[in-house]
Amino acid sequence: MKKQTKAAITPTRVENYPEWYQEVIKHSDLADRSPVRGCMVIKPWGYAIWENIKQVLDNMFKDAGVKNAYFPLFIPLSFLEKEAEHVEGFAKECAVVTHHRLEKGPDGGLVPAGRLNEPLIVRPTSETIIGDSFSRWVGSYRDLPVLINQWANVVRWEMRTRMFLRTSEFLWQEGHTAHATRDEAIERAGMMLDIYEKLAEEYLAIPVIKGRKTPSERFPGAVDTMCIEAMMQDRKALQAGTSHFLGQNFAKASGIKFQSAEEKEEYAWTTSWGVSTRLIGGLIMTHSDDDGIILPPKIASSHVVLLPIIRKLKDRPKVMEFTESLARELKEKFYGLRRVEVEIDDRDIGGARGWDWIKKGIPLRVEIGPRDIAENSVFVGRRDQEHNNKISLKKNYFVAEITTILDEIQKNLFERAVLFKRQHTVKIDETGRFKEFFTPENSEKSEIHGGFVLSHWCGSDECESRIKEDLSVTIRCIPFDIENEKRKCVYCGQPGANQVVFAKAY
Amino acid sequence: MKKQTKAAITPTRVENYPEWYQEVIKHSDLADRSPVRGCMVIKPWGYAIWENIKQVLDNMFKDAGVKNAYFPLFIPLSFLEKEAEHVEGFAKECAVVTHHRLEKGPDGGLVPAGRLNEPLIVRPTSETIIGDSFSRWVGSYRDLPVLINQWANVVRWEMRTRMFLRTSEFLWQEGHTAHATRDEAIERAGMMLDIYEKLAEEYLAIPVIKGRKTPSERFPGAVDTMCIEAMMQDRKALQAGTSHFLGQNFAKASGIKFQSAEEKEEYAWTTSWGVSTRLIGGLIMTHSDDDGIILPPKIASSHVVLLPIIRKLKDRPKVMEFTESLARELKEKFYGLRRVEVEIDDRDIGGARGWDWIKKGIPLRVEIGPRDIAENSVFVGRRDQEHNNKISLKKNYFVAEITTILDEIQKNLFERAVLFKRQHTVKIDETGRFKEFFTPENSEKSEIHGGFVLSHWCGSDECESRIKEDLSVTIRCIPFDIENEKRKCVYCGQPGANQVVFAKAY
Repeated sequence: MKKQTKAAITPTRVENYPEWYQEVIKHSDLADRSPVRGCMVIKPWGYAIWENIKQVLDNMFKDAGVKNAYFPLFIPLSFLEKEAEHVEGFAKECAVVTHHRLEKGPDGGLVPAGRLNEPLIVRPTSETIIGDSFSRWVGSYRDLPVLINQWANVVRWEMRTRMFLRTSEFLWQEGHTAHATRDEAIERAGMMLDIYEKLAEEYLAIPVIKGRKTPSERFPGAVDTMCIEAMMQDRKALQAGTSHFLGQNFAKASGIKFQSAEEKEEYAWTTSWGVSTRLIGGLIMTHSDDDGIILPPKIASSHVVLLPIIRKLKDRPKVMEFTESLARELKEKFYGLRRVEVEIDDRDIGGARGWDWIKKGIPLRVEIGPRDIAENSVFVGRRDQEHNNKISLKKNYFVAEITTILDEIQKNLFERAVLFKRQHTVKIDETGRFKEFFTPENSEKSEIHGGFVLSHWCGSDECESRIKEDLSVTIRCIPFDIENEKRKCVYCGQPGANQVVFAKAY
Repeated sequence: MKKQTKAAITPTRVENYPEWYQEVIKHSDLADRSPVRGCMVIKPWGYAIWENIKQVLDNMFKDAGVKNAYFPLFIPLSFLEKEAEHVEGFAKECAVVTHHRLEKGPDGGLVPAGRLNEPLIVRPTSETIIGDSFSRWVGSYRDLPVLINQWANVVRWEMRTRMFLRTSEFLWQEGHTAHATRDEAIERAGMMLDIYEKLAEEYLAIPVIKGRKTPSERFPGAVDTMCIEAMMQDRKALQAGTSHFLGQNFAKASGIKFQSAEEKEEYAWTTSWGVSTRLIGGLIMTHSDDDGIILPPKIASSHVVLLPIIRKLKDRPKVMEFTESLARELKEKFYGLRRVEVEIDDRDIGGARGWDWIKKGIPLRVEIGPRDIAENSVFVGRRDQEHNNKISLKKNYFVAEITTILDEIQKNLFERAVLFKRQHTVKIDETGRFKEFFTPENSEKSEIHGGFVLSHWCGSDECESRIKEDLSVTIRCIPFDIENEKRKCVYCGQPGANQVVFAKAY
């Protein structure tokens, strides 16, 4: 009866995109819900991706002169209040520590006790607490620049959460720098955004648009917020990383002052920049299909799984010996900075075994049976191709070529994503078409519609918020790579408007 | 006037040990106080040590089959309460989150708002929250063992804090495993303790005693707590790492059940084990002298600093060219798994420059002046030797031999520490001598006295707590490497007592 090809994930993307996303995470074994509201458990298969992202970024940061440090988890309320826009931006989503012990309550159960004189906020970001350190570290222009990064957990008490994309607690890095001049700070913010672009495109295989946010979308307290924006498979935008030029706002709030070469006291110019475990959400939504996730080899949790096929018990020693020797040979090889990672799965569970690894998105599956061994061959399936499209390769050739094959998969995934983004990016000048583009075609509201629209915008907050209200569409960024010609605003018709990127977004 | 050799750190160890410790941290640039009570800022020079420790441990964990994951920062109060001894042990030092936003209060300032239905505890350790995940991950004996580690921050609201040794927030790893049998869990706890011993002795150059805690010193909820104990330079003990066999206590509390091969439902057997940034405190107290810290090369923040000596401006290009070319050559070499790390300090600040690096504890200082260059030589000072004891080496020889020299320093530091520990470890059978040993000799209370005492103890809690009250001395552990002969208890005289290690402790 079940003749037609069924997908491994139910529902499929077209059937129900948000639910498909949750199911992909579950079946790929990336993460789990937790009993703590809005917090997730990152399982080993998902955490390994984060470890690989960390390694890649950390190397790039260190090459850019940035050093790692660690600052307190807790921020005294009075610190957060130092920058008015900043506290305003985060007040609604703060986890607040008010007590420092537990004691028996009237009912016999434990209740909070030992009230703190000043409430502590679990850091939603660390500008104010790191600014305090900078104010003590910096005295003279000779102490500048200060280039610091921290790998940390942060908490933002979001009302609506979604695994990886928006969780109450998430993991991230936050870079914080202080400079003697405005230009140097601006240059640094741009340099770090370039590193994020490189991470996204060359490692995560996610094409991005670089640009700057409109004033209403800026980081609370920033003078300028730059970002990379990616397109998901439901054609919505995902902000994948941000880099902020903070001017002297936080330097004034925290008292980061220095004596200049001309012996004048001046405030420093600061920046901050971050990416988070949200990138893994972006990875899933960019590369997964209806059979589960597809991991780009450069950041994959592992590269290749060996699946020994043992139909008769007597074949077992020979097949396992071949499998283990192949594993050893593969592990000798380097792919990028790390060694090729190899899994062996000898569970006797039939076809479910192959599907498990398809759903987990491992780049290569290698079947090894007695017949393959007789021919010194292996039977190889690539996760970026149809799952039945397996080919027999001579073992020695496979070992010699594995990094080339992995590179091909990496390249293929990126090119697919570039094509998808190009297909769903349009230029629109006409208001009617603009509205139509962002409105689902059928009577039922489909999750998959729209895309990126390059249109002109007058620059007014009012016009921007009307678009948001009417269509649930935001300006993702004013791209750096912009069409110079000024035209009429696509919504209000005012002339002299600049081109921006509109989209629905996560 | 100041003819006598002055130490770089004031006060010296003998003058005031606790203050010396704080000053070493300050002058070595390892860490800073923070405005948050009991929390510290780990500066780049200190954080690099932690990164190296992490790398070494992480590799050993992975080789032992352990995988990394990440669990929520917050633990619902009801979870902590699941294991009675456990919550009892941590109730007095919990940071409690009670609200999830801030709003304008009656005075116009921001106050906590949005009270949570159930208070959340900032994790002091994660047995209960990880146990919840395990209960969902484990169904059958085939799912076991589960071998998980997490790198995380934890919070224990200590009343008296001291940088690195005892801070309200600290960084650590916590391993958690679940097994089908008691024996396998016990074996795992021992295996992880062996890894801690290897880390301490082979990398941190800190000799340790392995043993088990007495019942009163066990981790709250554990059946057995094993530990490594180290001796600091004030002869006090530092618990440097612990590994717990938790029996079925936490499995019962969290419902970690599995179907055995015989199709019976059974509770799993669990372990947990951890080391923290406290190790850096142990490192300071083991290896520093009155001139600052001395970093063991294997975990040093950096290996060698090049100090170009430029007396005349015209010499600068030549000296810097030689210096930079030497740096490149050194960076080509591997020391352990990482490359040799090199700093160049060309600040024009006279003798203070060399002292800065002595205080920071870098293993090798290399002076490079025009005369050295003429002879193709470098002038090398080792941090484990007198600071004036520098020798001229041919540059090529120095480059060729650098890893050998670093290994010598590593070995030398460990041997010194072994000798120190041996010198201050005594066997005592007589009560009077036991009391005397732990009592300062002079009328003023010296910080440096005592050491480790191998004595026999009857096994009673009462006797143990009397010793603690009378002398501020605790049983550090019942060593694995024990003298079999049973004797009289050193304090109460009861016969048939086993040998244990007594000491004052951090």
